[in-house]
Amino acid sequence: MDSTKSLQFGTEIILQAEQLAGHSDDPDALTVAYLTRAHQTAGAEIASWMITAGMQVRFDAVGNVIGRYEAADPGAPILMSGSHFDTVRHGGRFDGRLGILTPIAVASHLHERGERLPFHFDVVAFAEEEGLRFRTSFLASSALVGQFDYARLDHRDADGVTMREAMCAAGLPGTEDAIAEAAIDSSRLLGYIEVHIEQGPVLLERGLPVGVVTSIAGNVRQRIAVAGLASHAGTTPMSMRRDALAAAAEMILAVQRRCTDLRDAGRALVGTVGTIAVPQGAANVVPGRCEFSLDIRAADDVTRDAAVADLDAEFERIAARCGVGLSIAQSMRVPGATCSPRLMDRLASSVESAGVPVLRLASGAGHDAMVMARITDACMLFVRCGNGGISHNPLETMTAEDADVAARVLLDFLRRTAAELG
Amino acid sequence: MDSTKSLQFGTEIILQAEQLAGHSDDPDALTVAYLTRAHQTAGAEIASWMITAGMQVRFDAVGNVIGRYEAADPGAPILMSGSHFDTVRHGGRFDGRLGILTPIAVASHLHERGERLPFHFDVVAFAEEEGLRFRTSFLASSALVGQFDYARLDHRDADGVTMREAMCAAGLPGTEDAIAEAAIDSSRLLGYIEVHIEQGPVLLERGLPVGVVTSIAGNVRQRIAVAGLASHAGTTPMSMRRDALAAAAEMILAVQRRCTDLRDAGRALVGTVGTIAVPQGAANVVPGRCEFSLDIRAADDVTRDAAVADLDAEFERIAARCGVGLSIAQSMRVPGATCSPRLMDRLASSVESAGVPVLRLASGAGHDAMVMARITDACMLFVRCGNGGISHNPLETMTAEDADVAARVLLDFLRRTAAELG
Repeated sequence: MDSTKSLQFGTEIILQAEQLAGHSDDPDALTVAYLTRAHQTAGAEIASWMITAGMQVRFDAVGNVIGRYEAADPGAPILMSGSHFDTVRHGGRFDGRLGILTPIAVASHLHERGERLPFHFDVVAFAEEEGLRFRTSFLASSALVGQFDYARLDHRDADGVTMREAMCAAGLPGTEDAIAEAAIDSSRLLGYIEVHIEQGPVLLERGLPVGVVTSIAGNVRQRIAVAGLASHAGTTPMSMRRDALAAAAEMILAVQRRCTDLRDAGRALVGTVGTIAVPQGAANVVPGRCEFSLDIRAADDVTRDAAVADLDAEFERIAARCGVGLSIAQSMRVPGATCSPRLMDRLASSVESAGVPVLRLASGAGHDAMVMARITDACMLFVRCGNGGISHNPLETMTAEDADVAARVLLDFLRRTAAELG
Repeated sequence: MDSTKSLQFGTEIILQAEQLAGHSDDPDALTVAYLTRAHQTAGAEIASWMITAGMQVRFDAVGNVIGRYEAADPGAPILMSGSHFDTVRHGGRFDGRLGILTPIAVASHLHERGERLPFHFDVVAFAEEEGLRFRTSFLASSALVGQFDYARLDHRDADGVTMREAMCAAGLPGTEDAIAEAAIDSSRLLGYIEVHIEQGPVLLERGLPVGVVTSIAGNVRQRIAVAGLASHAGTTPMSMRRDALAAAAEMILAVQRRCTDLRDAGRALVGTVGTIAVPQGAANVVPGRCEFSLDIRAADDVTRDAAVADLDAEFERIAARCGVGLSIAQSMRVPGATCSPRLMDRLASSVESAGVPVLRLASGAGHDAMVMARITDACMLFVRCGNGGISHNPLETMTAEDADVAARVLLDFLRRTAAELG
């Protein structure tokens, strides 16, 4: 650590995060959906930073930007780090991007010093994780691990554009064969490490700049449609209504109740209805249809799946009582992942070396590391999130000091990995 | 009645309603919003039918189509009949339109017989009543009674087009002066009679083709905005959330509870949340904002206003408990109206002459007659609604037999008015 100047990394990372936030689909707040113009220019800017950091850069068939800080030996194994650069609507500047900018800063430092590693250090800027445009998240890491679901190519965005069309418009081949070739050879991987803003309040409350992640919660996501009967708001007596929204409101409160049930205390169970619509609705029409999303997560999949089953049964009871139809479609089911004990211990040593007490914590949010864990050892470093832990919001923030600690920990982790190999 | 052939009127009215439904903003279901292309072609078709029926036709500055079946004396007083030709989204073929087609059919019959009346018979096809495009209903009748709110000219539709721009695009002047000139001289009016599909189940349940309306419920409409805090759906514990949609769900159920309160039984109190949105929402983001509409009606304004006051207070309590902000904006407040006893009695006589037992009933829906009642004596004839009384829905229906009864009652009403004048 003695070789690094104070805040050398942190200031650069914060400045680049600001600059990257200049690419946005929305002039008022940061929104970068998959393969939009802002998404493409953001990817190009990341590629330019990788090149400046002395890396070889390639784009794969789903738009991932992959930079390699090369080992002397072309046949060397690979240590991979990365995260995503797409965002939610009106998202934060560090969500995902921190995990791209931190390893680039570290590679740049090694490059400047002429310090070679006995492994290729690959930094992946994943093109899609949030699912904003096509409702299919972890798309980019799925392609990398060879588990891309080709049916997704026919999914349409809100404007009716298919994913395949969007890919072709962005200059990507948009073919199954090309996407299959994006899969990497896991036999050469030493492992995967992802740096990510915590997106929660734990490190902030403990007064720690970073923490070691132990597990990553998967999630179940459903699309729920309630079918009532549209009728006149002035002439349909309350007792004769089949109001789809009134039934949906009961279901939303059922989610609140179930996810605050004391029997699951301490298991990080959370349930969110994040979107809702009354298609063809008007102020003077009793809602004939209501559609909403449900996202359920917990520290373990058993707790989560029990809550999903209870809620689906409760939705059925509410629908029957309200005289409305119900359809529940599961749009996502991502298993949780456990981090590699070996990499966690190595990362913990690097945290200690930075003079930071080691806190191990679970991740309530899903991350690309969860998908990468299917093919290699994976670990994650969380970085303190300011403003009470707010994320998925323009108020998301972090300090240059914390970004600096994260970069120094990552640099130490690379050197420890080199030492273990050597 | 002996001069009319069986179903002469009814069949023609049903056919014209079908033909008029061919003009739609939406190819799949009947939607005619103010000043769209379909709205303009529908208005032109109505004008052509008026001309064929022997009427003089003019368009006024808000797009109303006004046909006059002229009296011999140019200075004769005026009896007015009409209703609106715009629709809700995915509406019915008879809502509003029946009250235009029926008086045209009657004028046509008088014209064919060469039967003159001692008053001008004006049929108004009101251009806007439902408020679909600009959320401002009764716009067309407001202009006619000289109470148009000019601030509405700057209201924007969902695409950001102002009402003034939409008027100009449709060939209307779009100026305050021109709209002021659309106001009619009430001193020349004998009264206003509106034929309308009941949009409810009462006549259907009583086995009656038509009924005499006694009063028309006004309504209060509000736009409610709940301000929470957008945050990550995976990392924000349930106890730390400020979920705008969860709070809104409680408010929606409060509407259901208040409007089924037994203390208001028999007062036709109804409350509807017809639209809802989580702007910038996503499945993986705790809702930071939720907006919904509230429409409250009752047989009398006192009952209605008490419910509105109770609900506003309850919304405040819910917002405080959930830690969210609340804003309530009243977007509409239409006083209810009582029908003219003199015209109701005359109309009841005409119903009796058609061999139909006289049922007097209140209207839970608002109608143009409510606005016209501000400047002249007004009455309404309700016509039986099929399919359980469904309206504001493509399933809205009525029979040619019932339309025929309505036309014969209206013809008799005109002749009785003539006899009383003479």
